[in-house]
Amino acid sequence: MATSKNRKNAFYAQSGGVTAVINASACGVIETARAHKDVIANVYAGRNGIIGALTEELIDTGKESAAAIRALRTTPSGAFGSCRYKLKSLDKNRREYERLIEVFRAHDIAWFFYNGGGDSADTCFKVSQLSQSMGYPLQAIHVPKTVDNDLPITDCCPGFGSVAKYVAVSALEASFDVRSMARTSTKVFVLEVMGRHAGWIAAAGGLIEEHGIPVVILFPEIEFDEAKFIAKVDSLVKEHGYCTVVVSEGAHRADGTFLAEQGTRDAFGHAQLGGAAPVVANMVKTALGHKFHWAVADYLQRAARHIASKTDLEQSYAVGKAAVEYAVKGMNSVMPTIVRTSSKPYRWKIGVAKLSDVANVEKKMPRDFITPDGFHITDKCRRYLEPLISGEAFPPFEKGLPAYVRLKNVAVKKKTRSDFSL
Amino acid sequence: MATSKNRKNAFYAQSGGVTAVINASACGVIETARAHKDVIANVYAGRNGIIGALTEELIDTGKESAAAIRALRTTPSGAFGSCRYKLKSLDKNRREYERLIEVFRAHDIAWFFYNGGGDSADTCFKVSQLSQSMGYPLQAIHVPKTVDNDLPITDCCPGFGSVAKYVAVSALEASFDVRSMARTSTKVFVLEVMGRHAGWIAAAGGLIEEHGIPVVILFPEIEFDEAKFIAKVDSLVKEHGYCTVVVSEGAHRADGTFLAEQGTRDAFGHAQLGGAAPVVANMVKTALGHKFHWAVADYLQRAARHIASKTDLEQSYAVGKAAVEYAVKGMNSVMPTIVRTSSKPYRWKIGVAKLSDVANVEKKMPRDFITPDGFHITDKCRRYLEPLISGEAFPPFEKGLPAYVRLKNVAVKKKTRSDFSL
Repeated sequence: MATSKNRKNAFYAQSGGVTAVINASACGVIETARAHKDVIANVYAGRNGIIGALTEELIDTGKESAAAIRALRTTPSGAFGSCRYKLKSLDKNRREYERLIEVFRAHDIAWFFYNGGGDSADTCFKVSQLSQSMGYPLQAIHVPKTVDNDLPITDCCPGFGSVAKYVAVSALEASFDVRSMARTSTKVFVLEVMGRHAGWIAAAGGLIEEHGIPVVILFPEIEFDEAKFIAKVDSLVKEHGYCTVVVSEGAHRADGTFLAEQGTRDAFGHAQLGGAAPVVANMVKTALGHKFHWAVADYLQRAARHIASKTDLEQSYAVGKAAVEYAVKGMNSVMPTIVRTSSKPYRWKIGVAKLSDVANVEKKMPRDFITPDGFHITDKCRRYLEPLISGEAFPPFEKGLPAYVRLKNVAVKKKTRSDFSL
Repeated sequence: MATSKNRKNAFYAQSGGVTAVINASACGVIETARAHKDVIANVYAGRNGIIGALTEELIDTGKESAAAIRALRTTPSGAFGSCRYKLKSLDKNRREYERLIEVFRAHDIAWFFYNGGGDSADTCFKVSQLSQSMGYPLQAIHVPKTVDNDLPITDCCPGFGSVAKYVAVSALEASFDVRSMARTSTKVFVLEVMGRHAGWIAAAGGLIEEHGIPVVILFPEIEFDEAKFIAKVDSLVKEHGYCTVVVSEGAHRADGTFLAEQGTRDAFGHAQLGGAAPVVANMVKTALGHKFHWAVADYLQRAARHIASKTDLEQSYAVGKAAVEYAVKGMNSVMPTIVRTSSKPYRWKIGVAKLSDVANVEKKMPRDFITPDGFHITDKCRRYLEPLISGEAFPPFEKGLPAYVRLKNVAVKKKTRSDFSL
């Protein structure tokens, strides 16, 4: 689409691990941009996130029908591709920023919408400073997304409510199963969930205690003490005949070693985790002799659009919408936030945070969300979590499977001469 | 409830691994028995399966409201408890059969409904012979249930359709996730599913190929060949940028050892504990260097009532209902079956099989359901599977979680004098 004299294009990219509802934010961005056609000519999406901007692999979202964009609300994963790629600081890698400006200038891009978590907020913050430091007029707005729920200021993070719902539903169902079998078979079931540094996802497993299920949670915020843990499991099995353990992938010992440590590292230099569940299950077997089963939910939990939280879905859409509205108002270097105005009944509205306050701040579970013994969530935590998993928003189904959309993802013709190597 | 001169009681027990819909069969049995109050006085359920009959721990289902029984349709797991306990043959353990007769006689039980898989069909068959061999009038009807889908004669097994739907939905969602991330991150995702001897559950993962997802299935029916497998993954990743592997827990090498048994060690020299998925994932990493993620669904898959197949739910109810109708007609030593009368459109009806034909027969995947290379399902398999996962039957939700029922499970007063030790 050609841009008129007064209209500019927007750039949108998905960053980091995708979620069940990040596409709902994309939908919010694109639908709202389309509602501001007088100002925003088109939205170009980065193919595979920020990499698409660096390599000039832009996707023309203008080629997608309204129905296809609408279907992003019910489709998990990143429709344009995401990436794990963190820009260094301007003085350490000026080349990358100059390249961004080159591509943005070539495609008349005036707005940068970056949909991601903590690392991405930092990148978005750096990009938001480019107007000043590199003399190219650009507004950068961060669209929050992270299953880890660890962004500051915002009451919760889009993507979290759905993974929390998945974990609570799965733990509830598996616990019902174990309770049925405990007389002669499995007595301890261990479910490993995501959350490298913060125990928000694991905490969601605690919501099933209200359903009479004995649960032990292993949070990354609490140093793992094997003797205390075994004593806890022992007492719950003696009382109930069985128990469920929800272990965060980030659970670690006093010396800092993860229960799951594998020794491999990802592109950000984070240790790649996976496999705390079998470690914990075998610990129980060795100490108490109970038959166990364990599950590792891994990507299933963050991709589970079929059991997404309606609250989460609506918030994910709302932050995308607000990002565009803030952009149109001329704001820069900000992030829409979720502001909780009431817990019972649950009410929320969209607020705004400065990226300088968001970047490089990680929100862990408050200590008073975890019981003194470190194994359960408190009522305060329950009041916080419950509304976030509330409501269902099932996708359409066809022949037994969710009818998820695949966009055409038509490439925008390249305009720069240079090739850029990552 | 006192029994009139002409009315007798029925005994119902759940056996072996529970499923997302075994309670729907219980619902079918109890509701249908209640509709035949002129003949059937009450249904006593075994607490923890057949063990409840041996220890005279009977549950009075007559104490449950119609609403509570109805809610069994939407509640996973075994509402009365199940067990893994196989009766030996009559000549090897006459004591157990005599005890069953003692308890049944004490409680005026004339019908034995046993809800389980292959082992249970064998037990039910033995019990069905007691009328003759021990002179106590009893009709034994087997109600089929197994996620493994390995019972003979019946077109499919209640419980299977729902786990198949869970596996297909989960594999689809996780594959969308991986496709989003593959440019810089995970390229191979491995999902481990149940099925120790038969690959039916793993086969369900193949249904997502129609959605354009590159999938490799590792069936227990096909001897695992590492070189061929790696070549397959390599070619799919080269073509699509990523691929998904669905591995059955029963996948094994030519020498019969399970993939999960491989004694791999992590970077720290620790033995890697359990799971075919991490073994397969590490194999890919070593051979091809791709970043991987893996999940082990374990109990989540067979407990996932929230994503149960409507077809499966209806069939599960129908076999419970038919069992009681067969009993009332005076039949003994039979099992209701699912008879497929048409694939497109899918039509089915209830049939009947003699337990002598069912006991100790295990139905594996036909070879023509698996492609010649051993890594995919054929169109014939697809036509078989598709209707079984069709339709959704979401449970009611409350505060974000499924509102599953917990029965009162009121104990029936014991009438025998003897204690029985298992």
